[in-house]
Amino acid sequence: MGQRIQPAVIGATGYSGFELVRLLARHAGVRKPILFSRNGDSAYKDLSDAYPQIAGNGGFPFENFSWQRMKDPGVDVLFLATPHEFSREIVPDAIAKGFRVIDLSGAWRLKDETNRAVYGFSDADAATAGKLDSEAVYGLPELHADEIKGAALLANPGCYPTSIILALAPWIQAGFVDLAHGVICDSKSGVSGAGKSPSSKTHFVEVDGDFAAYNVFGHRHTGEMLEQLGLDSGCLQFTPHLLPIARGILSTIYVKLAKPVGSDELEKSLHEFYAGKPWVRIFGATKLPQIKFSRNTNFCDIGFSLSPDGTRAVLVSCIDNLLKGAAGQAVQNMNLMFGFDERAGLQ
Amino acid sequence: MGQRIQPAVIGATGYSGFELVRLLARHAGVRKPILFSRNGDSAYKDLSDAYPQIAGNGGFPFENFSWQRMKDPGVDVLFLATPHEFSREIVPDAIAKGFRVIDLSGAWRLKDETNRAVYGFSDADAATAGKLDSEAVYGLPELHADEIKGAALLANPGCYPTSIILALAPWIQAGFVDLAHGVICDSKSGVSGAGKSPSSKTHFVEVDGDFAAYNVFGHRHTGEMLEQLGLDSGCLQFTPHLLPIARGILSTIYVKLAKPVGSDELEKSLHEFYAGKPWVRIFGATKLPQIKFSRNTNFCDIGFSLSPDGTRAVLVSCIDNLLKGAAGQAVQNMNLMFGFDERAGLQ
Amino acid sequence: MGQRIQPAVIGATGYSGFELVRLLARHAGVRKPILFSRNGDSAYKDLSDAYPQIAGNGGFPFENFSWQRMKDPGVDVLFLATPHEFSREIVPDAIAKGFRVIDLSGAWRLKDETNRAVYGFSDADAATAGKLDSEAVYGLPELHADEIKGAALLANPGCYPTSIILALAPWIQAGFVDLAHGVICDSKSGVSGAGKSPSSKTHFVEVDGDFAAYNVFGHRHTGEMLEQLGLDSGCLQFTPHLLPIARGILSTIYVKLAKPVGSDELEKSLHEFYAGKPWVRIFGATKLPQIKFSRNTNFCDIGFSLSPDGTRAVLVSCIDNLLKGAAGQAVQNMNLMFGFDERAGLQ
Amino acid sequence: MGQRIQPAVIGATGYSGFELVRLLARHAGVRKPILFSRNGDSAYKDLSDAYPQIAGNGGFPFENFSWQRMKDPGVDVLFLATPHEFSREIVPDAIAKGFRVIDLSGAWRLKDETNRAVYGFSDADAATAGKLDSEAVYGLPELHADEIKGAALLANPGCYPTSIILALAPWIQAGFVDLAHGVICDSKSGVSGAGKSPSSKTHFVEVDGDFAAYNVFGHRHTGEMLEQLGLDSGCLQFTPHLLPIARGILSTIYVKLAKPVGSDELEKSLHEFYAGKPWVRIFGATKLPQIKFSRNTNFCDIGFSLSPDGTRAVLVSCIDNLLKGAAGQAVQNMNLMFGFDERAGLQ
Repeated sequence: MGQRIQPAVIGATGYSGFELVRLLARHAGVRKPILFSRNGDSAYKDLSDAYPQIAGNGGFPFENFSWQRMKDPGVDVLFLATPHEFSREIVPDAIAKGFRVIDLSGAWRLKDETNRAVYGFSDADAATAGKLDSEAVYGLPELHADEIKGAALLANPGCYPTSIILALAPWIQAGFVDLAHGVICDSKSGVSGAGKSPSSKTHFVEVDGDFAAYNVFGHRHTGEMLEQLGLDSGCLQFTPHLLPIARGILSTIYVKLAKPVGSDELEKSLHEFYAGKPWVRIFGATKLPQIKFSRNTNFCDIGFSLSPDGTRAVLVSCIDNLLKGAAGQAVQNMNLMFGFDERAGLQ
Repeated sequence: MGQRIQPAVIGATGYSGFELVRLLARHAGVRKPILFSRNGDSAYKDLSDAYPQIAGNGGFPFENFSWQRMKDPGVDVLFLATPHEFSREIVPDAIAKGFRVIDLSGAWRLKDETNRAVYGFSDADAATAGKLDSEAVYGLPELHADEIKGAALLANPGCYPTSIILALAPWIQAGFVDLAHGVICDSKSGVSGAGKSPSSKTHFVEVDGDFAAYNVFGHRHTGEMLEQLGLDSGCLQFTPHLLPIARGILSTIYVKLAKPVGSDELEKSLHEFYAGKPWVRIFGATKLPQIKFSRNTNFCDIGFSLSPDGTRAVLVSCIDNLLKGAAGQAVQNMNLMFGFDERAGLQ
Repeated sequence: MGQRIQPAVIGATGYSGFELVRLLARHAGVRKPILFSRNGDSAYKDLSDAYPQIAGNGGFPFENFSWQRMKDPGVDVLFLATPHEFSREIVPDAIAKGFRVIDLSGAWRLKDETNRAVYGFSDADAATAGKLDSEAVYGLPELHADEIKGAALLANPGCYPTSIILALAPWIQAGFVDLAHGVICDSKSGVSGAGKSPSSKTHFVEVDGDFAAYNVFGHRHTGEMLEQLGLDSGCLQFTPHLLPIARGILSTIYVKLAKPVGSDELEKSLHEFYAGKPWVRIFGATKLPQIKFSRNTNFCDIGFSLSPDGTRAVLVSCIDNLLKGAAGQAVQNMNLMFGFDERAGLQ
Repeated sequence: MGQRIQPAVIGATGYSGFELVRLLARHAGVRKPILFSRNGDSAYKDLSDAYPQIAGNGGFPFENFSWQRMKDPGVDVLFLATPHEFSREIVPDAIAKGFRVIDLSGAWRLKDETNRAVYGFSDADAATAGKLDSEAVYGLPELHADEIKGAALLANPGCYPTSIILALAPWIQAGFVDLAHGVICDSKSGVSGAGKSPSSKTHFVEVDGDFAAYNVFGHRHTGEMLEQLGLDSGCLQFTPHLLPIARGILSTIYVKLAKPVGSDELEKSLHEFYAGKPWVRIFGATKLPQIKFSRNTNFCDIGFSLSPDGTRAVLVSCIDNLLKGAAGQAVQNMNLMFGFDERAGLQ
């Protein structure tokens, strides 16, 4: 196994942050992660105070962040499970000091300035952090493994984009999709995707037994999908919905085929595209993915149905938004960046 | 109030049947409904044995069905909350004997023989029951109030079609929808829509925390939508999904506009179409319907978002599948058939 | 029907307050309730902004509170669905001005000063509001109907106490319970009992799939149970738990019998105690109450099992915490106070 | 690690069976388990047909059972996740042929013939299988580790008994509990405890939003608790309830103390009793266990509250019914039986 690397995490008390620590804690190639409090704001001495789930594993104490502490044990990789504003502030220093960073926020995912506008970064930000926008690597391992291996700053993808890009990329690349007609992505996500901060939108009584669309025509994950799939903004329409479940995303994706393609060929193209990729599972013609199949796993499950007349298809893809949609993918990226097996620590 | 009418119900132990009895029991214009067991198959002496919810209301005993019993108290309207096969058998006799029937099953909803094929009615059926197919009135009160008033055989609409037809009818009639482009209806329903029979698909452990698409390109409610909206089969694509909730449907409907229409005009057309219709609520531009808003009510809620470039719109409609999608609509139809206020017994 | 009375409500945006307005709105004996904002704090112009559920009923606008507005239309009864601190402030004035008040908070339920200490009322409060403590009537209609009819200040019972007092009162009064042995009340409540304010304890992701005890040996509803049942504090032990459901309470109550009593006699004593009481349902020997049976109703359901050796019994009682445990019981009390049928507006 | 052992499983399609396979599949000390169909009744060729969750792991094909197949690869341990009737039939042969068996059913847990009567074993059974009743080892590792190590036939404990015995054993052994007064165990379990067969009791619509007690004074797990804790039947009262969640048990246990014992001493006794036991976590005075803390883990979490007067205590214990309550405990037992670390494959 060789020497184990030392990770550090900022933002461990959020849902993605906690999953990340849980994964790192059982990863044979890494030491116990150092957990940094943000601005000493943590009400917790140990992560098990916030999540008694992980008690009994020797403790995960919070420490105050300092660059000295980063250098002292020699942190090999710094994970950020923090708001994107925080990431824009700290990352330039971290990169300048030579640390490799895996950022789970949306801070560095977008290359196009117009798309990036949804995050409202300031002019001051553009002058400092903005220099890194072009260097950040979009960390979707099934598409960008080679760049990921050498990345200094890794932008971990959004949850919705992960489920949609992975489903669409093979057929778009194969020229099967009538892009001019427009692709419709109707996605449904569990509540953990909305974060851990209490609000009336996440109150149990409000969510239980309910279901709702939100941010129609205006969700900021849309830009990631367009950039990664190489589409103009009119070609893809994205509508997120909130499911009354804790975790999981299912995307129902509607495409018009650009030319007659049989069901076998469509399935074959998915298999070929993801050959050798351990974290994508292609479902055959008789069964579609469901949220429970990939829940608590790092898999992205992809299946589809072809219309009887062969002109249209519905792709269905599922991920666990906290794993393949966040912390699991971050570990998968770390595996590539540090030469581990892509599956390490994720099974 | 004048004289109260006498209803009878076959199939009261199903979810729709139970809701129907609950509504009839508090309707000031009707007597206590007579409940007929199907083929003596009921394990229950009284509906409160199956649903202790309604205990304390004087009892709802089951009786064996007979035409004599139908005539004796003078049943004014016979509700069927039964499988469609059963409806095809009993309805011709009921109509021949002069009874008015409100059928909650799919037995009589489709006019087009090709569409009707999905129900697999036999040749023998075609020779007998088939004669009634043209006489049955499709009971969507907001579209067909006049025919409903005089109906002998009323076909109560399906739950999914109710949510979709009501959302699309105004804009299609106004010529706002680019039908050639195709309309996509992505619907999500609670589990009660799958009926009361236990199966692995309705097992709590299988459904809880899950979400899934089913019957993609093959749900038999599609025919209703096409017929009622006057569309060719290629113009509308319907995908149902199963939500981990007990009741409620939300349909997300994607349309391309046939011409430039502003948001105000779109909203106005909805308001005008449903002026004076008490059971449709139009949501304004700032808020979309959610399942909880119409749960336990007979309302169909309709809202929409227009794309920033004004070329596409997303309609969102919600109903309670057991009320506006079944029993509530059946009572609304009864109200029209017997001269009651359309809101009677439903508030 | 005679003349309808005019209710007003402060605190309509909470869960109990909303249920109260919904009930009042369809009560044939009352006018549309006036809704007062608390200190102009409401972010809503109309209750349907907070609860689109009740849109389509003509509107429930919020008004600023003033004594002038209370007198102008002649408010007959003022409902408070507010924090107990607020109730202690406003009620003395309201009573002094001759208004009848139904208070859903815990402000006036306790007669014993020691028990009342859990609410932490100030010395200043004791000097003013404290004078009313002895005049307030504990509004459990099945026990105190006569006093309720003439009440000026009605203290609407807590949700847990309602489920427990109604279950235990008949057997304690009959001398069946070995009080010295001690009674154990293990109660489970849905999340709406925790109120509408968002917190990490009510976050969907925290509650979904979870179950927990809380306030063991320290819940402030305990005093109500002791006072109403006439017990010393050592005789009754109460443990509340939080269920991952929106509404409903089930209490499992363990008693040792003081003398040999058969199952028939135990059941008979319940039936006799609640003879003529429309909102208590006694379950027979073969079936116990479940939360869903009384959900969305004003019933308190009571059942029990006797140990094979006849020495111990388990009582099970269920209510909807927002109805019989709050708003429904408030309307039931209003019915008694104003001479309506006890069932009016609750079916 | 040395040579890996070969497990086989009968009953892998049930919830416990599936969890068992999932655990065995990632246990470094065992080979891929052989899955035997029961009587060829399985509708599945591979476990991933029933549970697509575990697709992508190389397949878990079902085979027909035969003693030849048991000997051929040299099965080291046979797991039974089958109905107890099936276990009573096959186990005598398996033991006679020299195989070690871990049985997750209730077939061999009870030593007392009177207690065993609840299972209704036949006279013929008594003559054959009955001989093994005294040899079977009750597999609660925290109490019987030494016997477990040498067991040929291991009776894996029931889920409810695991949560209750582990909570009570330390204080009963220490003489802290007033047994004559009686101990009350109020337990709440998720639906997976009811098994995978569909029924009206496990239908999503029936369970969602509901909560109910069942088998009051009559659950067959009671005998296990009495035998393992050395109690007379009058000393312990057990009431199970069904929670609307998929997995997890919380037991609220009421004890009267036999003598004055402080909170510190009570906590210390728990710590000492479970010193060195990796799968029990003791919660301190300020926080009680909740179902989510042990969900998806093999931990039994134990906490308590002491009454202000120090005479009574409430113990709260939680487990995941499919892990520490079934499959996880089975693997823990296998670890002891085959010399692995008790934690192997369970983290």
